[in-house]
Amino acid sequence: MAQSTLDYLDANFDPIMDRLLAFVSIPSISADSNCHEAIEKAADWLVNELASAGMHSVTKFRTEHNPLVYAEWLDAPGKPTVLVYGHYDVQPVDPLDKWKTDPFKPECRDGRIYARGVSDDKGPVLTAVEVTRAYLSTAGALPVNIKFLLEGEEEIGSPSIDEFMRTHSELLACDFVLSCDGAMWRISEPSLTVASRGSMSMEFSVYGPKKDLHSGRHGGAVANPLHALAELLASLHDPDGRIAVNGFYDQVAELSESERMAIRELPFDEKKYLEEVGSPEGFGEPGFSLLERNWARPTLEIVGMWGGYQGEGMKTVLPAEAHAKISCRLVPNQSPADIREKISRHLQEHRPAGVRLEIKESERGVPAYSVPENHIGLQTAKNVLKEIYQQEPIIVRIGATLPIAEAFRNYLKADTIFFSFSTADEDYHAPNEFFRVQRLKDGLRAWVLYFKELAAT
Amino acid sequence: MAQSTLDYLDANFDPIMDRLLAFVSIPSISADSNCHEAIEKAADWLVNELASAGMHSVTKFRTEHNPLVYAEWLDAPGKPTVLVYGHYDVQPVDPLDKWKTDPFKPECRDGRIYARGVSDDKGPVLTAVEVTRAYLSTAGALPVNIKFLLEGEEEIGSPSIDEFMRTHSELLACDFVLSCDGAMWRISEPSLTVASRGSMSMEFSVYGPKKDLHSGRHGGAVANPLHALAELLASLHDPDGRIAVNGFYDQVAELSESERMAIRELPFDEKKYLEEVGSPEGFGEPGFSLLERNWARPTLEIVGMWGGYQGEGMKTVLPAEAHAKISCRLVPNQSPADIREKISRHLQEHRPAGVRLEIKESERGVPAYSVPENHIGLQTAKNVLKEIYQQEPIIVRIGATLPIAEAFRNYLKADTIFFSFSTADEDYHAPNEFFRVQRLKDGLRAWVLYFKELAAT
Repeated sequence: MAQSTLDYLDANFDPIMDRLLAFVSIPSISADSNCHEAIEKAADWLVNELASAGMHSVTKFRTEHNPLVYAEWLDAPGKPTVLVYGHYDVQPVDPLDKWKTDPFKPECRDGRIYARGVSDDKGPVLTAVEVTRAYLSTAGALPVNIKFLLEGEEEIGSPSIDEFMRTHSELLACDFVLSCDGAMWRISEPSLTVASRGSMSMEFSVYGPKKDLHSGRHGGAVANPLHALAELLASLHDPDGRIAVNGFYDQVAELSESERMAIRELPFDEKKYLEEVGSPEGFGEPGFSLLERNWARPTLEIVGMWGGYQGEGMKTVLPAEAHAKISCRLVPNQSPADIREKISRHLQEHRPAGVRLEIKESERGVPAYSVPENHIGLQTAKNVLKEIYQQEPIIVRIGATLPIAEAFRNYLKADTIFFSFSTADEDYHAPNEFFRVQRLKDGLRAWVLYFKELAAT
Repeated sequence: MAQSTLDYLDANFDPIMDRLLAFVSIPSISADSNCHEAIEKAADWLVNELASAGMHSVTKFRTEHNPLVYAEWLDAPGKPTVLVYGHYDVQPVDPLDKWKTDPFKPECRDGRIYARGVSDDKGPVLTAVEVTRAYLSTAGALPVNIKFLLEGEEEIGSPSIDEFMRTHSELLACDFVLSCDGAMWRISEPSLTVASRGSMSMEFSVYGPKKDLHSGRHGGAVANPLHALAELLASLHDPDGRIAVNGFYDQVAELSESERMAIRELPFDEKKYLEEVGSPEGFGEPGFSLLERNWARPTLEIVGMWGGYQGEGMKTVLPAEAHAKISCRLVPNQSPADIREKISRHLQEHRPAGVRLEIKESERGVPAYSVPENHIGLQTAKNVLKEIYQQEPIIVRIGATLPIAEAFRNYLKADTIFFSFSTADEDYHAPNEFFRVQRLKDGLRAWVLYFKELAAT
């Protein structure tokens, strides 16, 4: 059965590629309120694909924001039920001038497809859809029961999906979640992710004079919000990189000596990594290796900061306001709400003289997540990866956040296995995002084998 | 003679106003390279007005950048020669969304004309032009010899005028300069400015990874340029507001006890000032009053700072670069080049780990300036202001920079008297710049009397 399904995918690779190019041409940026129409279009596109693939009960569920796409095929009695998760929304595209080609006019070159969202997460999502189409077209059935839940708000913190899970827990009931989202560590060897960091983001502003002043006429008289913001932001870290917010590390689950050992033994070339990202040297919390800092230590990053004149030349202005966005990555035992409160208190206590501070309401954060090592979904993934790549996959953590895993655990009591064939170097969340054509092929084959092996367990 | 000239101005106020509205409709932003055509248009407009007013040798001199407009009337043998200086270029308009009406569609409301450049410096420039037109139309002659030198690069640091003065010192020879630029201290009493601060601006950037990274995937591994920039900017001041750059205050000419006394005795209500600008409190170098800090102490202001994601929502990015523009105000004895070098050294010495620092080439700075108290041009201005406003003008310094005064002293050995009827509260360099209609009337009358009185000295 699986063989004919694999043959079907080989024979139909060109139309699959065409469908991927169509999918990534839709500018479904969830953070941009001008993209509502594209969001709807992407959801409708998925509804059509899932229905034409032969899935049942294909439904576009309205939410307060962007629709959720659901589909199911439940005609494998006695077999496990897998909930396939992914998202059809994409990151913003700025800085647009750094893109070599239009982010929404996909271009194939050197075995890669370049487009916003192709790696995160439309390529992986389409992989799962095409595998169901292949099974249903060849065998007329899937080896296991499958449900799809595809959302359009992942890149803005999934504001609707919790409520949907809470009110549709029966519809979504499953043995575990298989996620199209999340990427492999790197291209050189297969990997499986067993833990991810949580996150918590905030935006705040500093206000001085009620309008922009002339920096000569008024400079020296009143506080400059840009100085105040710089000072406030600088106060969040010690110069050596340790976070200076009181109590920030209090709840952190420290790595055990064996965990540190396991990370040390991974094939990781720090020098090569730094060459790849282009930073002159590594930097961060003292006392930890680069991978430890990135995987198992919390961070507090400024993700945006602005105020005053940014144009050509000079403008002698003492600006009225300055703004910053920060984002924390959290590790096990840290609570987003607690961290938010501690940072707010720090900001208030460190507010420089002469300005007002305003902290914006922010999205709820996400705690860190991890999956048990002996999980059947994880074991199946290991076996499939070993078969495809002829080597044992390595077990990694990731620094990024996969908030959805926490929600699935909360509302569906289900663990999440990340089984994506995109790779961490594919510049998602940056200009020139791409997805490797070979990985699309690997992913199609792997998902076919995964369902087959799971059915046989 | 003066009386009929004044009558002429009264009778012709409407066409004068029409000409001002036409002048300020030209978007001659010198900092914006898209405004070349408007710059030429503004210069041509002035050439036409000066010629139609009856001035001689009206010439548009080409420079490397924006043209200089020259005109003369030298038929008053034995009388002083005054060089009238002003500029026809204007500040950029952003943030454009803070303007109530289009910056280049002037609107009159509540006795004010709202438009970019109307106060700085097109209103005052037109005042001088109209006074020559009035004299030449009524008396057929001016009471003194007058030359005009109107530039189009004041708002970008006057890159061409020095060279022009150096090569045209004979053409521009004069007893002193009467400047249309510079504004009165405030609307409640007439004032004369006897000193201004110098200035020195710089731009610099901090670079980390070679492209934007995902803040989760990479956060903790490498330095974030936004942190590094915030830290670097914060390092420029002590928390109490004193500039922390090594040697920054070394050459500062300290105020004498009598100078401090004179400033203390000025009618200045700090509380009211703070209400007007809207800052919650005063802030700056400790040990000096607000006015002392603003008039006689150097400053270092961040005028722009940016990096990362500034849009709606959140983008989990660890940005590749961060940028800042800073601007210093200097006091007597400080050298712009020396200050620039000291700040550059500070930035290099304080560069945080993990990033590269790049300091941009910047415009030459301007030293501070002051005019002798017994200067004939200053005395004449005092007398005229007393006649117009029926009160003794107060003698003030200004915190802003009038770079041109230094150039006139250098190349023409001429002092500069600032005789503008715009006011410091008129939001030049900010949204909703305006000029008071009454001040336009006062200015016209004052310039008529000024030339008359100077001729009689």
